[in-house]
Amino acid sequence: MERLAGYLPVLDWGRRYDRQALLSDGMAALIVTIMLIPQSLAYAMLAGLPPVVGLYASILPLIAYAIFGTSRTLAVGPVAVVSLLTATAAGAVAPPGSAQYLTAAITLAFLSGLILFAMGIFRLGFVANLLSHPVISGFITASGVLIAASQLKHILGVEAGGHTLVELGTALLPALPDTNLPTLVIASAATVFLFWSRSKLKPTLQRIGLGARAATLLARTGPVLAVAVAIMAVVGFDLEARGVAVVGDVPQGLPPFAVPAFDAALWGTLLPAAFLISIIGFAESVSIAQTLAAKRRQSIRPDQEMIGLGMSNLAAAFSGGYPVTGGFARSVVNFDAGAETPAAGAYTAVGIALVSLFLTPLIFHLPLSVLAATIIVAVLSLVDLGALRRTWRYSRFDFAAMAGTIVLTLTAGVEAGIITGVALSLLLHLWRSSRPHIAEIGQVPGTRHYRNTLRHDVLRAQDVLSLRIDESLWFGNARAVEDVIQRSVADRPGLRHLVLNCAAVNHVDASALESLELVTQRLADQGVDLNLSEVKGPVMDRLARASFLEALTGRVFLSHHEAMEALAPDVTGMADRADPLAKDASRPFPERGSVTG
Amino acid sequence: MERLAGYLPVLDWGRRYDRQALLSDGMAALIVTIMLIPQSLAYAMLAGLPPVVGLYASILPLIAYAIFGTSRTLAVGPVAVVSLLTATAAGAVAPPGSAQYLTAAITLAFLSGLILFAMGIFRLGFVANLLSHPVISGFITASGVLIAASQLKHILGVEAGGHTLVELGTALLPALPDTNLPTLVIASAATVFLFWSRSKLKPTLQRIGLGARAATLLARTGPVLAVAVAIMAVVGFDLEARGVAVVGDVPQGLPPFAVPAFDAALWGTLLPAAFLISIIGFAESVSIAQTLAAKRRQSIRPDQEMIGLGMSNLAAAFSGGYPVTGGFARSVVNFDAGAETPAAGAYTAVGIALVSLFLTPLIFHLPLSVLAATIIVAVLSLVDLGALRRTWRYSRFDFAAMAGTIVLTLTAGVEAGIITGVALSLLLHLWRSSRPHIAEIGQVPGTRHYRNTLRHDVLRAQDVLSLRIDESLWFGNARAVEDVIQRSVADRPGLRHLVLNCAAVNHVDASALESLELVTQRLADQGVDLNLSEVKGPVMDRLARASFLEALTGRVFLSHHEAMEALAPDVTGMADRADPLAKDASRPFPERGSVTG
Repeated sequence: MERLAGYLPVLDWGRRYDRQALLSDGMAALIVTIMLIPQSLAYAMLAGLPPVVGLYASILPLIAYAIFGTSRTLAVGPVAVVSLLTATAAGAVAPPGSAQYLTAAITLAFLSGLILFAMGIFRLGFVANLLSHPVISGFITASGVLIAASQLKHILGVEAGGHTLVELGTALLPALPDTNLPTLVIASAATVFLFWSRSKLKPTLQRIGLGARAATLLARTGPVLAVAVAIMAVVGFDLEARGVAVVGDVPQGLPPFAVPAFDAALWGTLLPAAFLISIIGFAESVSIAQTLAAKRRQSIRPDQEMIGLGMSNLAAAFSGGYPVTGGFARSVVNFDAGAETPAAGAYTAVGIALVSLFLTPLIFHLPLSVLAATIIVAVLSLVDLGALRRTWRYSRFDFAAMAGTIVLTLTAGVEAGIITGVALSLLLHLWRSSRPHIAEIGQVPGTRHYRNTLRHDVLRAQDVLSLRIDESLWFGNARAVEDVIQRSVADRPGLRHLVLNCAAVNHVDASALESLELVTQRLADQGVDLNLSEVKGPVMDRLARASFLEALTGRVFLSHHEAMEALAPDVTGMADRADPLAKDASRPFPERGSVTG
Repeated sequence: MERLAGYLPVLDWGRRYDRQALLSDGMAALIVTIMLIPQSLAYAMLAGLPPVVGLYASILPLIAYAIFGTSRTLAVGPVAVVSLLTATAAGAVAPPGSAQYLTAAITLAFLSGLILFAMGIFRLGFVANLLSHPVISGFITASGVLIAASQLKHILGVEAGGHTLVELGTALLPALPDTNLPTLVIASAATVFLFWSRSKLKPTLQRIGLGARAATLLARTGPVLAVAVAIMAVVGFDLEARGVAVVGDVPQGLPPFAVPAFDAALWGTLLPAAFLISIIGFAESVSIAQTLAAKRRQSIRPDQEMIGLGMSNLAAAFSGGYPVTGGFARSVVNFDAGAETPAAGAYTAVGIALVSLFLTPLIFHLPLSVLAATIIVAVLSLVDLGALRRTWRYSRFDFAAMAGTIVLTLTAGVEAGIITGVALSLLLHLWRSSRPHIAEIGQVPGTRHYRNTLRHDVLRAQDVLSLRIDESLWFGNARAVEDVIQRSVADRPGLRHLVLNCAAVNHVDASALESLELVTQRLADQGVDLNLSEVKGPVMDRLARASFLEALTGRVFLSHHEAMEALAPDVTGMADRADPLAKDASRPFPERGSVTG
């Protein structure tokens, strides 16, 4: 039962559900529904799908998440970046508008659902760690720019496609003379209003007497207002006759039962994109959920989140939708509006279901250019160029990963961009790992402490070299450790003992073990024995299992001081005597880093 | 000048070259030449190239390495694994035996040369760290099996091709009835003799009175003996008339001047394979070079090694050869035979040049099956199935990477195998990183030391939580650190201060910085401030640059004890008093891990 409740969080919060929660959740759901109507239509258009698919993707997936998700306030549904990824992947299979394109989108949702569900069951959430913050941040910024650019054709009322900035630009430029003026005017007005409503609607509402919270929530209805006014303008001035493209006929009714394609070739083609959609969607969603949960001292479980999002996507696939994930803006609204449990998501689903049952005829005259304007205003808030400057100042490496991701995403497309980013950040991490911090240490006179010879006045023995390794040893740095040891020893002709202080070594993988074996052997060829000190328990167990300790030419010491007492009794003896004499200037005393013994 | 000598090691050792070195190098070169003749012919055959290409690849590349390489004793030339990779890559472009196939092989050498040279100049040797030891070891074992299987057709004298075990098997089985008996007999005899000569020739030679060193060296001539006897048998019994396939006409003369194809499409196709050949060749070569150098307290410079191998491959490309790298067996022979400088390699080149000028007519009657036997005997020594058992015992993770590499190499081919291995080992490393070691610490009573609460009897304060992070923070573990902190805090309702002990944190990348910022904010939402202690200098500088310290809700303390004195004076005060009283049983004393204050 406990275990079942782990997989079905609804069993936990559902038992304690009361009237107070119902009221809070209902209020939040109302606001989110109003916000979600234009968003779901717009993101479906961005994904190259009929607008109604956006509504379908905002019904069953929300209910699935309410049952399986662990966040109390995350609002799932179509989001901008995942819509762009869907457009790219489905566009590689079939032309937008075709039946195969819709099937590809549905199949993407199905595959993403399977991937997320399986990763959740097998607790593979760590795979999202592949996406470093600079890579995600750069990818989202570049996607925002790409998405905004891709919507310009709707703003101008012309035909132009493409998946990169260059493609979009070269398609758009020759089409400029065909710009439809009424379309452009209505889109510009919507854009200006939407930008204004983002920052100014709330203070305006407060000035006319609304409370802060009500003003905050009402300000979120800007897009719905724009949509309503645009529809009235189109109808009132008969703008369709003047060439303004509108949404047109939207089928009325509940989502159909859909089935993804079970076609091995199609699966093979879509699998990489489905994987990207899963990982990027999860990484974004889990970060929103965690931030909101922390605000109320709640917690979420990332692996169960994968199951929740997986079930959402499966629900999307079987109800004619397309890939969904947690959306930032709508989750914040849901939270601010007071949602207390995932039931708010289910109520939102009911709201959207009512819309698709009864209100779709109203959308007929909605201009596409106004949907494009809502997309542009939404995604431009994702663009964070300041992050480039901040990251540059913090670390050149992270900046390189971020800049590489942005440039590739813009010029070679979303998939190439994210893959380059991941590869680049892994390579840079590997490069950094290949230069582990290794310090030569010596005895702080009069103590049993050993410190970096470069930073402290310490004692060293002529025939003993003490190195402290400040990292776990794994294949990324194993060779570098070999090199450092080899070079340190080559510089010391009289050397007889090497002591590696392993206090900071939490793990030794098989590659590093091989390196240690090689080092032992090479040192033996040079007449130097290898000793270890302060090896952690679990590391010691493993080394013993691999029979490394039998091959060791020296010994393993519990403390570094013990090692020095055994290997360089002269120096440690002098040091032990040194303390009381330290202030006796008449006594010749070893100098900083000098070779003694 | 110093700098130039860095890029041209020959300037260094060349100046001190004397008669003694000349004699040693000359002797070693003679032995290596005798060993290299059958090897170069055989590996060219394995690569699907005319045997003479193997000779060409053993002349100029050796001279280039003698000028640019840093190892005194590494012997470069055609090797088994690189030959197999060449066959796979060239075979994807053109059928073996065609002019395009040869051009592809030459172009592979050219691209590998460029890649290695560029990586050497830009000091990118760390990229070889992508290949963890289990992956290389598994790859070489599987390659050995694949190579041996691919030579069975020559042993049987039938036609059968393929790049995976399954392909080879299904091609070979139906061809079995066509087995040529004389071919099989001669190949079996050669195989038995070669296996015998590996282990028994040396003791036999010693028994008939040779010194240990002479016996060791002469035992290496087994393959040449087998070749000579086989040629005589073919000629004596006219085995060609009975269907024994022989090498046939080998052009007499020095290597031609060849030019790689400058064809963007071909480059695009071959680039991934050239990259693999470069990295695998380098990783193998540098490990051999390092082992041999250590035996004489010499050292090699990995980045210059890349330049040396790069120049070798460029030399191969412009003289009608194919990709080369340092070979294990022949380097050991070179070392054992007393080679003192890279000049030995140059003399070997002269030896092979003389062979291709004068001795190629002798090779006409050499049976292909005997070459196949030398390959099989050579590569089966690469197969190390014991490594599977050893790795299993040491670490399940490393075993998974090794087993994955072996299975994929055998069933899906060399390229899929190595790529899977690299991806798998990176993912497993990432998984391990995603569970960083974080310990709650408390004060050892009466001291200023803080230790893991799970392992020691220590004091903790009720409203202060002290966590020690035992890893550098990077994108692989940043999210996990967030989770651990979130969970620790969620368990402690009365908490007011969190202190992260950063003594073991050597680096904080941008993703981890973002995590720390998020954690700070989330903790603030919960009324907990975040403090740091024992932050290393370089880490501190970076945090300051990113303005993290201004956003910090708590403070940064030099030592953990200072932090506790400031945040939990009750506990530390009690601890300070505790020492002299520790043995006073009448005084109630806080228990292990108990919450006090």
